[in-house]
Amino acid sequence: MNFQQKLDVIVGKNNSLVCVGLDSDISKIPEHKRSEINPQFTFNKAIVDVTHDLVCAYKPNTAFYESRGSEGIQELKMTCDYLHEKYAEIPIILDAKRADIGSTNEGYVDFAFDWLGVDAITLHPYLGKEALKPFLDRKDKGCIILCRTSNSGAGEFQDLLVDEEPLYQRVAKKVVNEWNANNNCMLVVGATYPEELAAVRKIAGDMTFLVPGIGAQSGDVEKTVKAGLNSKKSGMIINSSRGIIFASSGDDFAKKSKEETKKLKNATNKYRKETGYVK
Amino acid sequence: MNFQQKLDVIVGKNNSLVCVGLDSDISKIPEHKRSEINPQFTFNKAIVDVTHDLVCAYKPNTAFYESRGSEGIQELKMTCDYLHEKYAEIPIILDAKRADIGSTNEGYVDFAFDWLGVDAITLHPYLGKEALKPFLDRKDKGCIILCRTSNSGAGEFQDLLVDEEPLYQRVAKKVVNEWNANNNCMLVVGATYPEELAAVRKIAGDMTFLVPGIGAQSGDVEKTVKAGLNSKKSGMIINSSRGIIFASSGDDFAKKSKEETKKLKNATNKYRKETGYVK
Repeated sequence: MNFQQKLDVIVGKNNSLVCVGLDSDISKIPEHKRSEINPQFTFNKAIVDVTHDLVCAYKPNTAFYESRGSEGIQELKMTCDYLHEKYAEIPIILDAKRADIGSTNEGYVDFAFDWLGVDAITLHPYLGKEALKPFLDRKDKGCIILCRTSNSGAGEFQDLLVDEEPLYQRVAKKVVNEWNANNNCMLVVGATYPEELAAVRKIAGDMTFLVPGIGAQSGDVEKTVKAGLNSKKSGMIINSSRGIIFASSGDDFAKKSKEETKKLKNATNKYRKETGYVK
Repeated sequence: MNFQQKLDVIVGKNNSLVCVGLDSDISKIPEHKRSEINPQFTFNKAIVDVTHDLVCAYKPNTAFYESRGSEGIQELKMTCDYLHEKYAEIPIILDAKRADIGSTNEGYVDFAFDWLGVDAITLHPYLGKEALKPFLDRKDKGCIILCRTSNSGAGEFQDLLVDEEPLYQRVAKKVVNEWNANNNCMLVVGATYPEELAAVRKIAGDMTFLVPGIGAQSGDVEKTVKAGLNSKKSGMIINSSRGIIFASSGDDFAKKSKEETKKLKNATNKYRKETGYVK
């Protein structure tokens, strides 16, 4: 089963396009958790245990684990191990935004796909397809290429015109037409730019998008859903991180994260239905 | 003392522009080392102990440590700690090729500059200046932005024309004119593309370049040096990784790595002298 097949199964089972971003910044998790053993892992476990039937994926971002060095990386590993053991049907997306020259990327492939055992990874396009070959060759895994990112300064390079089209659209075309021979490519398109999201959808057919920027980054759910759905009224992994996992800093953090996940799931499905989705 | 000042001191003291890339792939280090405790660290230690008076910097690439998970990351930390303790005057460049949205980059800043305590890091430009602010704000550290990379497929995006100039030159101009307010920016320009290196030098004034691609990647030393030197006959950190550290797979690996480092140092200085450098 490749990434897309695994994703399709859980999207159907949980009837959800929502991805919870496990950006479990040690300085933002509830204070009473910070002094526990393995604070990031136990925090993640609590979130996962109450949201697993509401999501289509989990997306830990490596930066929040690396910030604590090897100890944090170990808790990222524990998080992935726990997900494999208890919720093996839910794909894990490693938001690592890696990309080096080809021979070096093999190290990142080992880290992400083999040591952590995640199902997909986010990648920078700047070094080109040739450099990303070690990732692209992994038919069983997903390669999610940065196209139009969610940050306010994304346009500095991504909007530069190349033959009268913005660079991010050129990235989308390359990925769709030239990089996707193994049917394992996806694109990152931020929820904070619904017009650009719609433009990339026109280019990308039914390709799945990872869509960050909902929640703390203020992406609009209705605009995002309506701009990004594919012909099957699906094809999006809609991520919220801080808006869900840090919904409360009290003892009720897990309960509140569940409520926020449910809210986002219901909102996305409402707008999907308005476009003709039936479930 | 900021990165450039620290670099200038050691370039002068060791009379060297050579950087040794500690790309200590566990599957490529001498077989008799692999079964030792902390094989990557002890391998690095052996290399560093015989090359420290021949180099201007060390450059470990995170991929080769991440490939072993938290254990590898711990050996990267041990390597940095050892360098701080014994050879504190030699800058460490973390070749991590990171870049995320701003709030997330703070995690990578913690990892690189605070936990590992390295002096500089390599960064992808695709998300723009606004996203890289947590790195650029660190006046004491170096931010080395990917401009023209050394891989064979680098041109796929980097050569795309934006207003009749290739994207990599636009990246160079932005970094030189807009990103470098704290005088802490540098550029990555591969030795495998001497013409592009010369073009970036024209844009970048005396800015320091990190130049990978010598050795295993077959960059030509004479062409590289002559294309890349700045007005002070310096301004380059010329990196060789595999060509130095894996020069021998036998017991004499450290001795051979020293010989290769000396060869590269002498060759670069020979060509510097041909351009008018006096020392």
